[in-house]
Amino acid sequence: MKVVKFGGSSLATGAQLEKVFKIVSSDPERTVVVVSAPGKRNAEDTKVTDLLINCAKQYLLFGEAPELVESIVSRYADIADELGLSNDVIDLIRSDLCQLLEGDQQDPSRYIDSIKASGEDHHAKLVAAYFRHQGADAYYVSPKDAGLFVTSEPGNAQVQPESYQNLSKLKKQQGIIIFPGFFGFNHHGDMITFSRSGSDITGSILANALKADLYENFTDVDAVYSVNPSIVSNPKEIRELTYREMRELSYAGFSVFHDEALIPAYRANIPVQIKNTNNPDAEGTTVVPKRDSTNGPVVGIASDSGFCSIYISKYLMNREIGFGRRVLQILEDDRLTYEHIPSGIDDITIILRQDQMDETIENRIMKRIKDELDADEVTVEHHIALVMVVGQAMRHNVGTTARATKALSDAQVNIEMINQGSSEVSIMFGVKEAQEKQAVHALYNAFFEKALI
Amino acid sequence: MKVVKFGGSSLATGAQLEKVFKIVSSDPERTVVVVSAPGKRNAEDTKVTDLLINCAKQYLLFGEAPELVESIVSRYADIADELGLSNDVIDLIRSDLCQLLEGDQQDPSRYIDSIKASGEDHHAKLVAAYFRHQGADAYYVSPKDAGLFVTSEPGNAQVQPESYQNLSKLKKQQGIIIFPGFFGFNHHGDMITFSRSGSDITGSILANALKADLYENFTDVDAVYSVNPSIVSNPKEIRELTYREMRELSYAGFSVFHDEALIPAYRANIPVQIKNTNNPDAEGTTVVPKRDSTNGPVVGIASDSGFCSIYISKYLMNREIGFGRRVLQILEDDRLTYEHIPSGIDDITIILRQDQMDETIENRIMKRIKDELDADEVTVEHHIALVMVVGQAMRHNVGTTARATKALSDAQVNIEMINQGSSEVSIMFGVKEAQEKQAVHALYNAFFEKALI
Repeated sequence: MKVVKFGGSSLATGAQLEKVFKIVSSDPERTVVVVSAPGKRNAEDTKVTDLLINCAKQYLLFGEAPELVESIVSRYADIADELGLSNDVIDLIRSDLCQLLEGDQQDPSRYIDSIKASGEDHHAKLVAAYFRHQGADAYYVSPKDAGLFVTSEPGNAQVQPESYQNLSKLKKQQGIIIFPGFFGFNHHGDMITFSRSGSDITGSILANALKADLYENFTDVDAVYSVNPSIVSNPKEIRELTYREMRELSYAGFSVFHDEALIPAYRANIPVQIKNTNNPDAEGTTVVPKRDSTNGPVVGIASDSGFCSIYISKYLMNREIGFGRRVLQILEDDRLTYEHIPSGIDDITIILRQDQMDETIENRIMKRIKDELDADEVTVEHHIALVMVVGQAMRHNVGTTARATKALSDAQVNIEMINQGSSEVSIMFGVKEAQEKQAVHALYNAFFEKALI
Repeated sequence: MKVVKFGGSSLATGAQLEKVFKIVSSDPERTVVVVSAPGKRNAEDTKVTDLLINCAKQYLLFGEAPELVESIVSRYADIADELGLSNDVIDLIRSDLCQLLEGDQQDPSRYIDSIKASGEDHHAKLVAAYFRHQGADAYYVSPKDAGLFVTSEPGNAQVQPESYQNLSKLKKQQGIIIFPGFFGFNHHGDMITFSRSGSDITGSILANALKADLYENFTDVDAVYSVNPSIVSNPKEIRELTYREMRELSYAGFSVFHDEALIPAYRANIPVQIKNTNNPDAEGTTVVPKRDSTNGPVVGIASDSGFCSIYISKYLMNREIGFGRRVLQILEDDRLTYEHIPSGIDDITIILRQDQMDETIENRIMKRIKDELDADEVTVEHHIALVMVVGQAMRHNVGTTARATKALSDAQVNIEMINQGSSEVSIMFGVKEAQEKQAVHALYNAFFEKALI
């Protein structure tokens, strides 16, 4: 069987729901459908989830938000109208939403979270009604009834281990299950959401619990591209890549698939296929545990900006036991995560995301490193971009690094740092942000445009 | 003024001492001479220091070692004979050595250390006698009288801060000071040696204390070479390099100058010149605080084997605050130092020297990482060599990395890892030990044999 997840733009209008129904009903293996809240119908539109957040906030302030409630309900009503559904489901959605809005407001973030989660929950009910209207044996399943239990952190719920066992029982049910994405319940019965794009997580958890043969993730692009299309136009599509490669790509700017969502599928070795609701015949991209590397060693070029580097030098640092550990302890004391630590003999560089540090934190860190570790020199460089060449097959390919560095050199990009560990799933280059696009272009040309030797 | 240090091979015979006298007396700035114990006279010979260690050990076992005492004293006597010196100084050396051998044996390592140190001490007295015999105003100065105080760890003495102030008073003395290298005294009056090649350290401390204009280090090679001559024949000599470059080179297999010895000179910005006693007109190599990079970005290629790499992967490692710090803590608990930590998104590789770990430690470390950090995969790879391209001017040279990686790729060397931090004093490549020489050849050819663009 297959778990199929549809994103918000795939479910934004009646016309989109018709496509979704066609896709699901064209393959009897597609028995579990995970739905998002209605997304944008056009570039200026607002997602239902965002309307819900505003609505909850207004309720917290004024105890009512009649216009927002109507605009939310009308989003569902428009779809129902378009599809010729009865008003029953819309009445149900309106009453349920109003009941939620009148709920316990003692913990505002939990209150907002439950309202936010209703976007998916209500849409699952609407989708189930539409599928039945089309003659399918489809029904809404509540995450509560199915036993999808999560931790209590709003917006960052973690699945509880027993959920997998609970959800596996859905296998016995007949027909098509319509399951709302994005949230679960804590043990007190509160709705708690996963991190943003959390419907991907729900689908992945279900795929794992049900030992699905495939987890299909329908979105609005034909495939994962080998490079960011906003930097390089018409880039090559990736047909197949490994979990590790996907993770490395999504780390540095690829946002097609929520990387945290890969974990449950990864743990159960379930392939994840990314497809386009608007073009379901396109091959899509499949994320697999292993792949052969017939398509060349590199699958993609990713980049992300907003990094900084802290450079620390101290003569004979190399002989000091515990130096590196103490540097990392100082970062940890301020809850900072670092990305990489390239090092010379007597110096180390720490690459971290700038947005974790304001000036106060930065100054405190710098002072502590200087004073407590008696460093000779501590400097920080801002506006660093990381550019990654990703491909699991690089490991056994002698020339990959040479090709990459030559491409950067030919493009007059100065490499600020390089990081390549034993895994060789990726080579990371640090460059100045001003040279990021130049670097991505150069690497894309080197690995995808030129004939590979 | 200049502090001049002579190594053991420069002081092994009377003929060598004649060269030393010529060198010192040819320049009135050479007023402080640091001497080593007599070294090897030929490839089969034994250094006096090694004879002394054996002699001390035999004394500890049997309370006497008449033959070893004679062979030690005869080394000095042969030199005195060759130079036509009176027997007075030899008698003095013999009685002093015998007195030391009858000394306190309660702490065997300290006992051996004091015997070991006498090699330099006695030779300084002999050299001073010879210089006076030649008509020079030269005299032996005892480290004790001069106030060279050190910590009490035999074979790894660290200079006490007050020594610099004490030694600075030598500046007022007239004539040529002959100062024994390799040891100082702790506050109880015990002779304690520096680490091996410690005469370099003594010279560097004196150069700092006396604010010398130059610290000349006479040895038996014309210069520091840009690559190990046992791998590449007739390599290019290095005329000038920075402390940092010297340190990076000496880290990975360059043993011309003891890198710990650079510190005192480095702290006082005193240039260090490496020259050849047997060819004093050769230009030598000068270690300086800064250099211009007119000779190309790279000064040398160094390599060293005997490393291993521990590869750790864990899905979403990157999001775990404290992961890296906890890995380093595990290493620190076993007093292990690491060299580099290249990393991917969800993996890190730790490069460390194999000789720190036996199988038991290795297994313990691996198990702790696996269990305590819940890693997905922990593997160790042995027989790794590190090959370094060193040059402070690489920082602003776009093509250096490309040139290096292309050279390795053309030579079919697989790069296991790369490490290049912000300092860019060096780029480190990890390769399999079996490919070490191949890699060094390829890099040397790329940076020194081909015309540089």
